[in-house]
Amino acid sequence: MKNFLILLIMATASVTANAQAKKAEKHRVVFQMSTADAQEQQGLIRNLNHLMEGWGDTFEAEVVAHGPGISFVTNQSVVAGEVKKLAAKGIKFVACENTMKQKDIKHSDLLQGVGTVPMGLAEIVLKQEEGWAYIKGNF
Amino acid sequence: MKNFLILLIMATASVTANAQAKKAEKHRVVFQMSTADAQEQQGLIRNLNHLMEGWGDTFEAEVVAHGPGISFVTNQSVVAGEVKKLAAKGIKFVACENTMKQKDIKHSDLLQGVGTVPMGLAEIVLKQEEGWAYIKGNF
Amino acid sequence: MKNFLILLIMATASVTANAQAKKAEKHRVVFQMSTADAQEQQGLIRNLNHLMEGWGDTFEAEVVAHGPGISFVTNQSVVAGEVKKLAAKGIKFVACENTMKQKDIKHSDLLQGVGTVPMGLAEIVLKQEEGWAYIKGNF
Repeated sequence: MKNFLILLIMATASVTANAQAKKAEKHRVVFQMSTADAQEQQGLIRNLNHLMEGWGDTFEAEVVAHGPGISFVTNQSVVAGEVKKLAAKGIKFVACENTMKQKDIKHSDLLQGVGTVPMGLAEIVLKQEEGWAYIKGNF
Repeated sequence: MKNFLILLIMATASVTANAQAKKAEKHRVVFQMSTADAQEQQGLIRNLNHLMEGWGDTFEAEVVAHGPGISFVTNQSVVAGEVKKLAAKGIKFVACENTMKQKDIKHSDLLQGVGTVPMGLAEIVLKQEEGWAYIKGNF
Repeated sequence: MKNFLILLIMATASVTANAQAKKAEKHRVVFQMSTADAQEQQGLIRNLNHLMEGWGDTFEAEVVAHGPGISFVTNQSVVAGEVKKLAAKGIKFVACENTMKQKDIKHSDLLQGVGTVPMGLAEIVLKQEEGWAYIKGNF
């Protein structure tokens, strides 16, 4: 009986330790890109590059482009080359389908490697609910 | 004794399961409205409507209007009708009392159904402390 | 044995109660200052003062100045006096070293009492990972 209790306590301690180790393993960040301003779009690219350099494989990021920020991930994007490069390195880029409908943007108008989500803001909320940090990517 | 332990473990498991179910039950979001820009104010309305359509009763939102964004919830608001409609559907709107004092805005200047909080930013912090997601509602 | 179990349950309850008490003890907030706009910089000062008045010793804040917002904490800052006063009262101000390199800003160009961090956005993410609330300080 006593052994059983000790095991129970050890199991609890182990679960807690695992949860904390997991927390430190990865830096998960959801970025909100909601501006058409070219300088601010370039600013986010610069920041993503810095974070990748600093954190390497422990950096997991998703950029949600919505509203005027949808231009960040279309074929006419002023940062098209950089977005494609970062997508190839594992940064996730998604466009808001609501915004796409509103602005008549088709899937073929999006840069290669860019995914979509039904609602941009909902995606940002869901990520925060999963424990991701949130950064509003307009400066 | 053994039965008691089994009960204890079941109770613990049940508490954990409930906590997770509760987390999924509601999407709680606090929005910061801090701009007087009409287009950005209309953008937040559009987003609130989309989230209500998508999430229905599982969407719980509070919009905190402060600084220049206080105009979002006054009688002169460019989105007065939409704010009143969303308030009637259960979205909570609150104005910052500090901003009201600073701009000499009275309670009677606020749209019907709009509440107040002593400090707008403090309210946003308190909501995050309670586990709500945060969205800066200027785009 | 029964006593041991009661102790175990009491210990669990006590840990939970402590966690909640600790949560309420301090309001920890990381602010992102990323704009050179004088009015918005003054707005953040006003908000920091309000929060200090309202929350006193239970308010713990760190302001991360990066990108165009770096001007907030340099010797030419339009809010230099206010930043120094708030720093003396315990508000922490840090400048992004990446931005400093990019804009050729030296440590001696920073206001007294201002620290630095390797990457501004990384600092904001780390604070969120530690449970701090996040406020984007441009309005």
